[in-house]
Amino acid sequence: MTPTETVEAFIDAWNRCDVDAVNNAFADDALYHNIPMEPIHGREAIAQTVTGFIVGADAIDWQTHHIAANGNVVLTERTDSFDLKTGKSASVRVMGTFEIDDAGKIAKWRDYFDSVEMAREFGLGPGDSLGG
Amino acid sequence: MTPTETVEAFIDAWNRCDVDAVNNAFADDALYHNIPMEPIHGREAIAQTVTGFIVGADAIDWQTHHIAANGNVVLTERTDSFDLKTGKSASVRVMGTFEIDDAGKIAKWRDYFDSVEMAREFGLGPGDSLGG
Repeated sequence: MTPTETVEAFIDAWNRCDVDAVNNAFADDALYHNIPMEPIHGREAIAQTVTGFIVGADAIDWQTHHIAANGNVVLTERTDSFDLKTGKSASVRVMGTFEIDDAGKIAKWRDYFDSVEMAREFGLGPGDSLGG
Repeated sequence: MTPTETVEAFIDAWNRCDVDAVNNAFADDALYHNIPMEPIHGREAIAQTVTGFIVGADAIDWQTHHIAANGNVVLTERTDSFDLKTGKSASVRVMGTFEIDDAGKIAKWRDYFDSVEMAREFGLGPGDSLGG
């Protein structure tokens, strides 16, 4: 797969709520950084956060508006929507960068969004954590 | 110029604090949307906002970490830094999408960042406006 295809498959795995496929997409020493929050280091720690997001949702729909690659780096513009198990829905406007290693795994993932929009959409207060 | 070169020249114009070059980069009916805020329609309204940012700075340094194009759409990952005339400095982590028209002008520009980070860096309270 090309780096772009790797990212498209990753987003498709989110949209299937496929926890294993999402978690298997990361390199062992991957970095996942939701820019307004602290970065998460390593596949196991990332899996905890990612699994929290997925098991909290009845359905996930990430729409990719634009995707472009430069070598092994893939940039995306998306709207990430979740039907939450609480009965609410959440939708966040996001851009994200993915750096793909030679084995086709995600080595680095950085997502940029407004933390106020994220907190509002997920119904969180300032002290609550996200997906943890 | 390719769409990527157009965006690189635009960022370079910001880094020279070149108000005219920045404003001339937009199509007449351009859309500028800092995602956490309301979109700004049209070259004249955009010029007001953009000029406000530039004349408020002694120096501007936007670092482009990654840039990738898909047709006429160019995606960027940046850190946008300003030495403000107030004596403070401000630095915001940003991703932005640029849609370039056939004349080589910016038709649409969408920047994604955390509004909390932006307000903190620019020393603004919740009721203050940015760059206006």
